[in-house]
Amino acid sequence: MRQPLARELHDLLERGRDRQLRLAVTGLSRSGKTAFLTSLVNQLRHAGLEARLDLLPAAREGRLLGARRVSQPDLSVPRFPYDGAMAALTTDPPHWPEPTRGISELRLSIRYRPAQRGWWHGDSAQLALDLFDYPGEWLLDLPLLATDYLAWSRAVMDSAGPERQALMAEWQAAAAKLDPAAEANEAELAEIAEHYAKALRAAREAGFADLQPGRFLLPGDLEGAPVLQFFPLPGLADDRERLDALPPDSVYATLAARFRHYQQRIVKPFYRDHFRRFDRQIVLVDVLGALNAGPERFEDLAQALATLMQSFDYGKRSLLSRLFAPRIDRLAIAATKADHVTPEQHPRLTALLEALLAEPLKDLRYADVPVKALSLASIRATEVREVTQAGVRSPALRGTTLDGERVLMFPGEVPNRLPDEAFWARQGFAFTAFRPPQTSGAALPHIRLDAALDWLLGDKLQ
Amino acid sequence: MRQPLARELHDLLERGRDRQLRLAVTGLSRSGKTAFLTSLVNQLRHAGLEARLDLLPAAREGRLLGARRVSQPDLSVPRFPYDGAMAALTTDPPHWPEPTRGISELRLSIRYRPAQRGWWHGDSAQLALDLFDYPGEWLLDLPLLATDYLAWSRAVMDSAGPERQALMAEWQAAAAKLDPAAEANEAELAEIAEHYAKALRAAREAGFADLQPGRFLLPGDLEGAPVLQFFPLPGLADDRERLDALPPDSVYATLAARFRHYQQRIVKPFYRDHFRRFDRQIVLVDVLGALNAGPERFEDLAQALATLMQSFDYGKRSLLSRLFAPRIDRLAIAATKADHVTPEQHPRLTALLEALLAEPLKDLRYADVPVKALSLASIRATEVREVTQAGVRSPALRGTTLDGERVLMFPGEVPNRLPDEAFWARQGFAFTAFRPPQTSGAALPHIRLDAALDWLLGDKLQ
Repeated sequence: MRQPLARELHDLLERGRDRQLRLAVTGLSRSGKTAFLTSLVNQLRHAGLEARLDLLPAAREGRLLGARRVSQPDLSVPRFPYDGAMAALTTDPPHWPEPTRGISELRLSIRYRPAQRGWWHGDSAQLALDLFDYPGEWLLDLPLLATDYLAWSRAVMDSAGPERQALMAEWQAAAAKLDPAAEANEAELAEIAEHYAKALRAAREAGFADLQPGRFLLPGDLEGAPVLQFFPLPGLADDRERLDALPPDSVYATLAARFRHYQQRIVKPFYRDHFRRFDRQIVLVDVLGALNAGPERFEDLAQALATLMQSFDYGKRSLLSRLFAPRIDRLAIAATKADHVTPEQHPRLTALLEALLAEPLKDLRYADVPVKALSLASIRATEVREVTQAGVRSPALRGTTLDGERVLMFPGEVPNRLPDEAFWARQGFAFTAFRPPQTSGAALPHIRLDAALDWLLGDKLQ
Repeated sequence: MRQPLARELHDLLERGRDRQLRLAVTGLSRSGKTAFLTSLVNQLRHAGLEARLDLLPAAREGRLLGARRVSQPDLSVPRFPYDGAMAALTTDPPHWPEPTRGISELRLSIRYRPAQRGWWHGDSAQLALDLFDYPGEWLLDLPLLATDYLAWSRAVMDSAGPERQALMAEWQAAAAKLDPAAEANEAELAEIAEHYAKALRAAREAGFADLQPGRFLLPGDLEGAPVLQFFPLPGLADDRERLDALPPDSVYATLAARFRHYQQRIVKPFYRDHFRRFDRQIVLVDVLGALNAGPERFEDLAQALATLMQSFDYGKRSLLSRLFAPRIDRLAIAATKADHVTPEQHPRLTALLEALLAEPLKDLRYADVPVKALSLASIRATEVREVTQAGVRSPALRGTTLDGERVLMFPGEVPNRLPDEAFWARQGFAFTAFRPPQTSGAALPHIRLDAALDWLLGDKLQ
């Protein structure tokens, strides 16, 4: 039995910052957050038994003993539905888990042998890993804190391309009729706001990502609340003095008040209560999906990522640092679904991700935030084959489509820099969505999830 | 044009307490909250045009000029879906509106002529009426604040009758296997909690009302959060000292921590942020439905109402007064769906409601809270007819059942005191659910909604 003094010291060390790590996973809708978290938990749970984590030294060296789910500290945050996700992946035929809505959490207690044993560690050590999953769309709202209703109204309409504009036509026609100075009509504002939310939902369905305000897409308990019933007013003159003098029940003042409420009661609390407390973060990006969807959506993804990455720009003068003093000390950016292209394309996929994020990455490096870009597949759905055609051997993928058809295919080349007009003209890339693999209680197959794990928590398992 | 000084004084008076009234509507699930609020708004909107509000003096005297929906002050509270409810009532065939989930709000600006004009009123005056609608189940949680996990665990199992016990059997079998001192297993607790929530939902489906904790039935954004994953532990000994000494990761300590979180973060915020700010309140009770459902459910309703009414007991020593200092100055208790019995039964219905609430009403009167009991139909779905059988004329109801069948019927006699065994043996009452009436833009037909309005806001329209 451990001596009381040693036990106390041990407990003290356990409670220290190093023995607990808050790791957040985010990404825009359909970037693969649920698959990533499910596989991450699955790999760590199987770590002691089946080593498929060669890029994680603690696992390679046999020091990673296993992981157990324990009670999470934040009782009001929904638990990440790992069991439900595994159930979806292990039915016959397997299907992808339901996407999560809003923030969720899961705590793992990881047991490992330290690389160098100290007298105070006993035989093994534990790391409490708190995993968080939240919609990347919430990060798109950060810039709202740096603006006001008038500036936002004037900016929104400028940024949309022709396809986005077309989706917003119905809303715009309704909103254009409003007189900013007229007395607000509750029912009318609610109706136009619903048009606006509908346009955002349609844009997301059509593959667009740069959608503000983020909560309009997943309202949850705020469904029907006035705070989610504002929208930009088209054609506002830049005459702040006159607009600010309008009476409180005017259309302009009503919408501006709701915008401020959204800033203060929706955006700020997320950063203050959650984001500020994350230690490390991985951002997942579905680069291949955007590549498949054409130039306007690809450009839109680039814009959305530039906005999203502002949340990790800790430069001393950044909005974020001034407001919330966050403390993330390591960031990973991952292009997901790497199993949807042949392996020799993976370096190109990573290069494309870095090209897509070139500007934000420069800012991050300047601000001295350690960041790593990689490509991965959280759950590998395809197998690599070779085909010989006219005597030339080339790689191909074998997988099952969502409709259940077994196919052998070569999806095409991933450009290793931002695609130009020639690329789009060629339509050189054809993305197929695959069904998850059949699994049978073994660890889920993956590509480089272990590399991500090493970057995100390897140093804590030394 | 009004003089500047008079205008300022007028505005000052407008902002005074008397020019704003926060009226809350509650009731257990299916008591008719949505129909009540919809009809209330509808009557006030039509007040200037079609006087069906003879029991409201301001309307009878032609001083009620009308009401308009204006922006509500609480931007994070969902707006009461009046338009959706009216759409349901005016389709062909009409159907009852979807029940609301959680709290909602709607503000009306009522314009009226004061009974005695003062120089400061101008020609007409305005009253801002904030209407709130929230689940009565939330009030069933108040007693949780006065107890702790151990006492609650021991009490829950004692209070259930045989039918309730049967619904809880599956959960109880699972929970009985737990060792309070064992280390908590996250997944196991989540599973047993789901059994408990399922038993609560089944009990509600079966017509029971006294269900705690209330949020388990409408979790909203807290779906899957640990704070909604506790349950009583069967067979706990009354040995607080030993139980409190169990380690924090034990089953007992884990469940007790979630119980405390529920008290502090779920129950208290509702009372502090909403309930405390209501000026007046109406509690709706579906007495007839319970009468139809038999003795165990009727007894259960009585118990639930006794619990619910504690939230209005402002005696100096009450839990509520000590915690929140609420300020409701008028309370109405209404038996709804009075149109489902013939008119000569209405006084009996009110008498039965008073008998059902005899004990809580005594406490309220002792605490000097002005309270009025009445029976009403928010939206009258039947017409009164007379049938002659063997030369005897007797009243009957003509209506359309939910299946669309036109019927003429006499539902039976309502007992004017608590039903005894003889009543239950006779099964003297047969309740039929009716479809709402066909309406065509006119004010909704009702029974004594104007009496309720007079009690709740008549004095503010003097």
